[in-house]
Formats: sequence, C-alpha cells, structure tokens
Amino acid sequence: MITVPGEGGDENVKVAVLVSGRGSNFEALCREETGRGVVSLLITDNPNAPALEKAGKLGVEGMYLFPGEYRTRFDPVHEERWAAAMKERGIGLVCLAGLMRILKGPILREFSGSVMNIHPSLLPSFPGLDAQGQALEYGVKVTGCTVHYVDEGVDTGPVILQRTVPVFDDDDRESLSARILEQEHVAYPMAVKLHCAGRLSVKGRKVVTSPAERSAGGILLASNEEEL
Amino acid sequence: MITVPGEGGDENVKVAVLVSGRGSNFEALCREETGRGVVSLLITDNPNAPALEKAGKLGVEGMYLFPGEYRTRFDPVHEERWAAAMKERGIGLVCLAGLMRILKGPILREFSGSVMNIHPSLLPSFPGLDAQGQALEYGVKVTGCTVHYVDEGVDTGPVILQRTVPVFDDDDRESLSARILEQEHVAYPMAVKLHCAGRLSVKGRKVVTSPAERSAGGILLASNEEEL
Repeated sequence: MITVPGEGGDENVKVAVLVSGRGSNFEALCREETGRGVVSLLITDNPNAPALEKAGKLGVEGMYLFPGEYRTRFDPVHEERWAAAMKERGIGLVCLAGLMRILKGPILREFSGSVMNIHPSLLPSFPGLDAQGQALEYGVKVTGCTVHYVDEGVDTGPVILQRTVPVFDDDDRESLSARILEQEHVAYPMAVKLHCAGRLSVKGRKVVTSPAERSAGGILLASNEEEL
Repeated sequence: MITVPGEGGDENVKVAVLVSGRGSNFEALCREETGRGVVSLLITDNPNAPALEKAGKLGVEGMYLFPGEYRTRFDPVHEERWAAAMKERGIGLVCLAGLMRILKGPILREFSGSVMNIHPSLLPSFPGLDAQGQALEYGVKVTGCTVHYVDEGVDTGPVILQRTVPVFDDDDRESLSARILEQEHVAYPMAVKLHCAGRLSVKGRKVVTSPAERSAGGILLASNEEEL
C-alpha cells in the first residue's frame, strides 16, 4: 500500500510541505535530520502565511496556490492544481503541517500512501480542531503528538509515531501547545526520515518499521528520550 | 465535590477494593505505599476470584457478594447491599480494580466523589472492554493506563493520573497488557495516596493536586520516572 521510495538505492526523496500558518514544522523539517528526505517545496493556501518568508530564507521554493472558495476543504479543481505542481517537481512525499483543509481527492490519489500529517494529540484522542483545548477540557494528564499517514477521514489514518508530554495543573492552551510543539519538531523529521529510507510499511491500520527496531516502534516514541 | 478525607488530620482512610478477577491491582494496593490509605476490605462478584485467596493471605477481609442476575451491571437491590457492607465497615474510598460491572446507583451515591477506577488505556482513547486489543487494532505507538474518579458513564470520569507505555511492532494482547499492568501497579497506589492525603480536588472535569506539585500533575505521570 505504501510507496517505498528509494528502496535499496540512495536517491533522495523530494518532500513538499503544505501549510496554512507560520510553518514551524516546515522549518523543523528543513533544519532537522531527515535522511534521504529533502524539503524542496512549500505550498500554502494563505498568501499571508509567515511560512512563505521562511521558505525564502531557507532557500526552498515557496508558493501560494488558490485552494478554491471553501473554507475547510479544497475545491477539487484547485486541489488538482496543487497535485500537478507537486507532480511536476517530482515530489515523493507530501507533509501536511498545519494545513487547515481536508484532502478529499486529487492529492491523496496522486500521492497515495505518501501523504503524512502531524496532529497535536495522542490520536485517537482529540481529533479535529483545537486538540490542545480539547485535552485541557477533558482533563487528561498526558497528551502529545501523532504523525500519521493521511486517509480520507479527519485524523484517522495509520499512526507512524507518537510522542508524549505531561499536562500540568496550571497549563493553559498556550503553554500546552508550546510543549507539544517541541515534540512535533522532533517527531515529524523522524517520521520523514523513516519513510524516505523505505523503512515503513502499512499492514491494515498498523505501521511497521523495517528492519524491526524496537526503539522505532515504541520506547523511542513514547519516552522521548532515545534517538534513531 | 470530592470528599476530602482526613484533611489536616492524621487518620487513616479505609479502602475497599472491588474485583472480579485475579486481583493484581488489589495486591499492589495492599503492598505498595499508599500513605493514609489502608486496604481493609475486598469484595468480589465472582465466588471463584483468585483475589479472595490473595485477601486471606494478605490479612484483608475478603467477601463474595451476589451482584444480581445481570451480567454487566448490578441489580440495584444487591448493589445496595454492597454499599451497606462498605458503610458498616467505615470505608472511605472505593477502588474498582477489574470489576466487570457498571455502577449506576447505590455505591456512587453512598461514596460520592470517593470511587476510583483504573483503566488500561490513555482515556479518552479506548474506553470499555478490551482496551489493549482496541489499541493494537488502532495501531497506536503509545498507550498506558488511567486512574479516574467514577461517574455514571463508562470510563468517563475525571482523570486523576495517567502513565504511558510504548507499543512495539511485535506486541500481542498479552505482552501489551503485561506492560500496561506494571504501570497500573504504580499508578493506582499513587492515586490512592494522593486522595487519602486529601490532596485531590475536582474542578469541573479537572483533578487538581494540592498543594500544587508539578510532578504530581504531569511529568511524574507521563514519564514514569519520578516518584511522589
């Protein structure tokens, strides 16, 4: 089901990052170790996204593309253009990083098995908008972030990795979001590295790391301590 | 909302543990440090529960009480008798530990704010039966256990603490359950200790530890490293 890029070879995988906002995960993907994954394109649906300026500074091609008139999803005609822009540039992996739109068609079809998202909760807890606020409202003592492959649901795709953070009694949305974001910036580059090394495969809903590496499937991701 | 036992005083709190099965959490509550909480009663709805023998060996009064003819809930008439047995013995805290029945009435009313449960997942993920199997099926990389106050829902009450464990690619239900159980045996005594020291209060859905202690609300519970 997953396209295994560069298996056995050494070629790099061109990564596109799709954002709506400031692009802090985009920046982490550019700066952190991602192995064969090389961020080469940023696309945003927001002409004022601070991420555009970041892309310029980081020497990554950045573009605004019109998403259509809907507020939370693509107009399929325009999603087609996003997919085409990525295809033309030989993109092998699509990373959603704060893109405030649901993919329904062209991008998922064109990049089947090679679209990832990061979500600021331990899914399946708190899918959808304002995951940090949902966590505070529920009163959990632990939350975190999840990198997952994207399917047609909202935050429902197979989980690649998860990292945890504590919730403190005096946390507000801002302090908790900042703590989770630190872990996002570690988790997302790790997931991209594993994917681009051809080490991830999806069996049913389960993402398996090959060759088997206990640290990749678990302790690493849970304790936030060991590194790849 | 929470009955604060022994506030400012030094009296012990008598703890009753309600089980259906082997009673490993019962044993942990007897053996581990629980401060002013003293396990003094075990009640089971299963005349063959291995926990009954454990209670005898541990010098704790153990009893089987008929729960009524339903399979997953109490007959209210019989739940009344369970509540009465605990009231007669001056029980101050009721700990569910693998009791396969939903409380709907008398016990919750009689011990309002002083009924706890432990659940083998990071709630709100995977409530209900076979939480470990649900976690494996979903494909999460992190799961754990949750101690919470009991309300009339299924695994929906305010969260007291949570501890995490990694999920490995080669885990099955048995290996994952064993890993979670180790953390349950740490988490439950800690929660009982905090409650019986009068340090927990419930604000809305949120359980706050007083005096404020960052480690109690968070790191401790997330990283599984620091101790009270």
